[in-house]
Amino acid sequence: MTKIAIMMGSKSDLPVMEEAANVLKDFDVAYEIRVLSAHRTPKETAEYAEGLRERGVKVVICGAGASAALSGVVAAHTTLPVIGVPIDATSLNGMDALLSTVQMPPGVPVGSVAIGKPGAKNAALLALRIFGVEDAAIAEKLEKFREEQKQKILNIKL
Amino acid sequence: MTKIAIMMGSKSDLPVMEEAANVLKDFDVAYEIRVLSAHRTPKETAEYAEGLRERGVKVVICGAGASAALSGVVAAHTTLPVIGVPIDATSLNGMDALLSTVQMPPGVPVGSVAIGKPGAKNAALLALRIFGVEDAAIAEKLEKFREEQKQKILNIKL
Amino acid sequence: MTKIAIMMGSKSDLPVMEEAANVLKDFDVAYEIRVLSAHRTPKETAEYAEGLRERGVKVVICGAGASAALSGVVAAHTTLPVIGVPIDATSLNGMDALLSTVQMPPGVPVGSVAIGKPGAKNAALLALRIFGVEDAAIAEKLEKFREEQKQKILNIKL
Amino acid sequence: MTKIAIMMGSKSDLPVMEEAANVLKDFDVAYEIRVLSAHRTPKETAEYAEGLRERGVKVVICGAGASAALSGVVAAHTTLPVIGVPIDATSLNGMDALLSTVQMPPGVPVGSVAIGKPGAKNAALLALRIFGVEDAAIAEKLEKFREEQKQKILNIKL
Amino acid sequence: MTKIAIMMGSKSDLPVMEEAANVLKDFDVAYEIRVLSAHRTPKETAEYAEGLRERGVKVVICGAGASAALSGVVAAHTTLPVIGVPIDATSLNGMDALLSTVQMPPGVPVGSVAIGKPGAKNAALLALRIFGVEDAAIAEKLEKFREEQKQKILNIKL
Amino acid sequence: MTKIAIMMGSKSDLPVMEEAANVLKDFDVAYEIRVLSAHRTPKETAEYAEGLRERGVKVVICGAGASAALSGVVAAHTTLPVIGVPIDATSLNGMDALLSTVQMPPGVPVGSVAIGKPGAKNAALLALRIFGVEDAAIAEKLEKFREEQKQKILNIKL
Amino acid sequence: MTKIAIMMGSKSDLPVMEEAANVLKDFDVAYEIRVLSAHRTPKETAEYAEGLRERGVKVVICGAGASAALSGVVAAHTTLPVIGVPIDATSLNGMDALLSTVQMPPGVPVGSVAIGKPGAKNAALLALRIFGVEDAAIAEKLEKFREEQKQKILNIKL
Amino acid sequence: MTKIAIMMGSKSDLPVMEEAANVLKDFDVAYEIRVLSAHRTPKETAEYAEGLRERGVKVVICGAGASAALSGVVAAHTTLPVIGVPIDATSLNGMDALLSTVQMPPGVPVGSVAIGKPGAKNAALLALRIFGVEDAAIAEKLEKFREEQKQKILNIKL
Repeated sequence: MTKIAIMMGSKSDLPVMEEAANVLKDFDVAYEIRVLSAHRTPKETAEYAEGLRERGVKVVICGAGASAALSGVVAAHTTLPVIGVPIDATSLNGMDALLSTVQMPPGVPVGSVAIGKPGAKNAALLALRIFGVEDAAIAEKLEKFREEQKQKILNIKL
Repeated sequence: MTKIAIMMGSKSDLPVMEEAANVLKDFDVAYEIRVLSAHRTPKETAEYAEGLRERGVKVVICGAGASAALSGVVAAHTTLPVIGVPIDATSLNGMDALLSTVQMPPGVPVGSVAIGKPGAKNAALLALRIFGVEDAAIAEKLEKFREEQKQKILNIKL
Repeated sequence: MTKIAIMMGSKSDLPVMEEAANVLKDFDVAYEIRVLSAHRTPKETAEYAEGLRERGVKVVICGAGASAALSGVVAAHTTLPVIGVPIDATSLNGMDALLSTVQMPPGVPVGSVAIGKPGAKNAALLALRIFGVEDAAIAEKLEKFREEQKQKILNIKL
Repeated sequence: MTKIAIMMGSKSDLPVMEEAANVLKDFDVAYEIRVLSAHRTPKETAEYAEGLRERGVKVVICGAGASAALSGVVAAHTTLPVIGVPIDATSLNGMDALLSTVQMPPGVPVGSVAIGKPGAKNAALLALRIFGVEDAAIAEKLEKFREEQKQKILNIKL
Repeated sequence: MTKIAIMMGSKSDLPVMEEAANVLKDFDVAYEIRVLSAHRTPKETAEYAEGLRERGVKVVICGAGASAALSGVVAAHTTLPVIGVPIDATSLNGMDALLSTVQMPPGVPVGSVAIGKPGAKNAALLALRIFGVEDAAIAEKLEKFREEQKQKILNIKL
Repeated sequence: MTKIAIMMGSKSDLPVMEEAANVLKDFDVAYEIRVLSAHRTPKETAEYAEGLRERGVKVVICGAGASAALSGVVAAHTTLPVIGVPIDATSLNGMDALLSTVQMPPGVPVGSVAIGKPGAKNAALLALRIFGVEDAAIAEKLEKFREEQKQKILNIKL
Repeated sequence: MTKIAIMMGSKSDLPVMEEAANVLKDFDVAYEIRVLSAHRTPKETAEYAEGLRERGVKVVICGAGASAALSGVVAAHTTLPVIGVPIDATSLNGMDALLSTVQMPPGVPVGSVAIGKPGAKNAALLALRIFGVEDAAIAEKLEKFREEQKQKILNIKL
Repeated sequence: MTKIAIMMGSKSDLPVMEEAANVLKDFDVAYEIRVLSAHRTPKETAEYAEGLRERGVKVVICGAGASAALSGVVAAHTTLPVIGVPIDATSLNGMDALLSTVQMPPGVPVGSVAIGKPGAKNAALLALRIFGVEDAAIAEKLEKFREEQKQKILNIKL
């Protein structure tokens, strides 16, 4: 059953957002992935966001660049937790997307991760941490992931 | 007949957006003014934007601070020209609102003016310039405004 | 009949400003395109701006990089609506051009779009929205453009 | 039973972080609140973070200013979801805290909200959305909160 | 005989630009001071700039805030040396004025000094250094100024 | 006779500073060019700056990147006019060099031009404008340069 | 015996730099404190820096604002460790001083601390850590300071 | 005997941090070099930092990118002097790492050097200056290094 929706504002965001998808695959967590734009498909975005909870989706990850309104607009149309991934898609190195994603006004929360691929990967991990609050199996996998990540660093020989 | 809609994302934006209203009053151009939020009243904002053209509104001016999605969302729901006023509403001096307002992705245009009160005043003047394209009376008033503005500067005694 | 003037401060701005021209071609709207600099051809720029309305031009699009004075100077010499396109032409990624274009003082409005090609494309679309206020045919084309743009996104298969 | 831990790096962060606490009170969700610093009490911070899951805490909210390492360090010591609140505590208007909070390297996720009080309020709301994934009562309260928030805006008379 | 023209884009720039005037008074160098705007009085600004050399003015100091086009526009209309003073007149702390003033395209030089009062003072001193290239009396006064400035620091008792 | 000294903080600044040298060659104005660092050869830099006036040099152009102290230090050791060229030599795109060059404290003026090659070219033109205050031949050449520059733009065929 | 020299570029920096002095007093470490400017007293600054080691000074702390050249210039004239304190003295919130202080070119090191009072306090603590490398008494005091600092936080009752 | 510990948060930081190692090799000062992450190996980082003094290490150099917590966390676990090297590892050009490294709260000092390779080289030189406070041989080598560095510049023929 789909537990996570990955959305992105443009097909060109896919190489970044695949980082999130890959983490979810590694954790065997079902997700769906869609291109939907706050600006170019506003109604479809609103409808999609409104239908998410009913379909059993539990967390939404939204990647967007430039004036990155997607995560905020999705958060406006659902009460599910929304994680925003600012994408470096303009000459401003992602600073525009970061401020658009993170500086949400009080009342409509978005949790922003870092700009670009590191952020997309962490968005998936944050979603998994949310599942892990109640799901002991995922919590355990997260511990294992942390341990492996640690070992990778400790095994580096310079 | 209402020709311009002034929208703002929060009541606290009013002192800024009144600058736009005051210019329109000076030019005797009818406007309506509403608080509607891209994030807190997304459906009402969409419906309002969609109904504007039908009601005879010709230009929309949208003021918002922080992750200022309002102008972009309104531009997504109408084909009327949309002018965005970034408002300095956070610790970042309006840079967040500026980038959110101006860095629109291709396909959904917003014309951004300056941050804050100078921008709000210019938003109204830009709307009047748009009317003045076809409306000779407004074009003439704009010329008169320019002349007065010029004289004010030339009359300064230091 | 020429309805739009596209101006740019340097020949090197052409690859960006062609994005605006291409949109206008797609919409069958006549335009003229000129290199004129606020700093290197100030008189010709002023004269050109002053003559625009008389020649039937209705909207001006100005692209410039660095200390991008062009749109502001043109707005100072005409009461037509002026749309500014900040161009990323220096090491500062277009932030210099954005602030020069958008931070106009009260009294002389410029509507700024995004930095670079997305902005140039949107400048043309904003000009078309201005025409579409009165011109039902253009308004209809804009609706069709929006619909096609939407379908392109909805047809993406990931 | 305590479900949320609110941490902050300095007592001076309290006026900001109380915004989060107030939201949780309004939602009748138990929380604990502590001053613990990544830099000044590193061991106690690590131990506290490590003990959170065992004690039944489900989400951690961390507020910090300047080189805001707290949320990242807490995320390094727990697999619970961590929400970071950047606080404007230096001359740099919170940009330092924002970048320190949000730009986490891949592998250790933090969801950052906006700088300062709006962020603190949203941090609590994001935590509540996380609970609302499984807890229908909280999900319902969130819907009610959204409805009230909407009505407040719609009731504004200008 | 007037040797220096001090120009500013708005009367509100006067408290800053008086710092330049005061230095010139201290050095007994004649100056004139005018409010003229690149955007609000473009023709008068151009004519004034074009007439400067003929009237014996040797250096121009231009102060402006926001999209600070004044110094660049003046430099476009004269071959006299132009010194720009960026003024902190918006929410962006003068960064907009600084970039607009200093990032001139190749071919039309402006020498920018620091934002605000320190810059205005230095603009006058830079003008005096320009005179001092040929004028031994001014060069000597500059040496004396430097000596006094040095002594002031060396005499500080903490 | 050498009239201009071009200094740069590092040999790697040469491709930028050659732009200044090339302008001076075109104007047949004698210059000398030296690598001297405020940080690595502080005494030689001080001595060189102190000896400039005596040797008949009239204007100094200083290019430096990173914490660009060169122009300020030279201005501290001479009363000749100093023009600073910020160079983009680090990951910060020249913003570090720009602020180090332009934000001089009151009392020690530097005229900063734009970052990089456009700035270097303009530094030479500003130096020439300084000479042109008294030297009619240079003033005339500057007029001719402006005319040619204008014609180049007017002759562009798009 | 004086072990630390505290320098600052202007008397107005004293309220910031006193934070450093106060830490040293608390640790009973002798220091001297001087106003000397890289730009206004360049020779005295150079001579002072060159004489430090001989007089037994072991670490230099330099505070400066704007184009903060002091720490770099001192580092150019001594091989003692130099700690720079960027001071928020202009409209740019200390970002100019930070970049001028920290972005030193390779070969002449400065260790920069944070902008303003927190930085000044830490500059003194970093100097004490340097002494504590060899001086067991100071190392012990630093441990005690850390312990007290920790207890202060742990004793906070919210 | 190892006198310096070079730490970095990720193996990808090695090309930068090798600049520090190379300087230490040139000065024949023993060092050890380790990858340890504040976020991915927090306990090992803490233990390593706590054991440094005991093992005779005297100075720690920490390089990290993004939300660069490493230097601050190490400074929290030792009273040795810590030098931070911000690394340009994200789209933000190292500004995130710089602010995370340098903006330490009062009480836990880190001396930050410049972003990237110039900073890494200077980190080693700053460490050597710290040794040179007591170690005359190193002080002498530093003088020689300065002399050679000076000669390299003075020998440049343009």
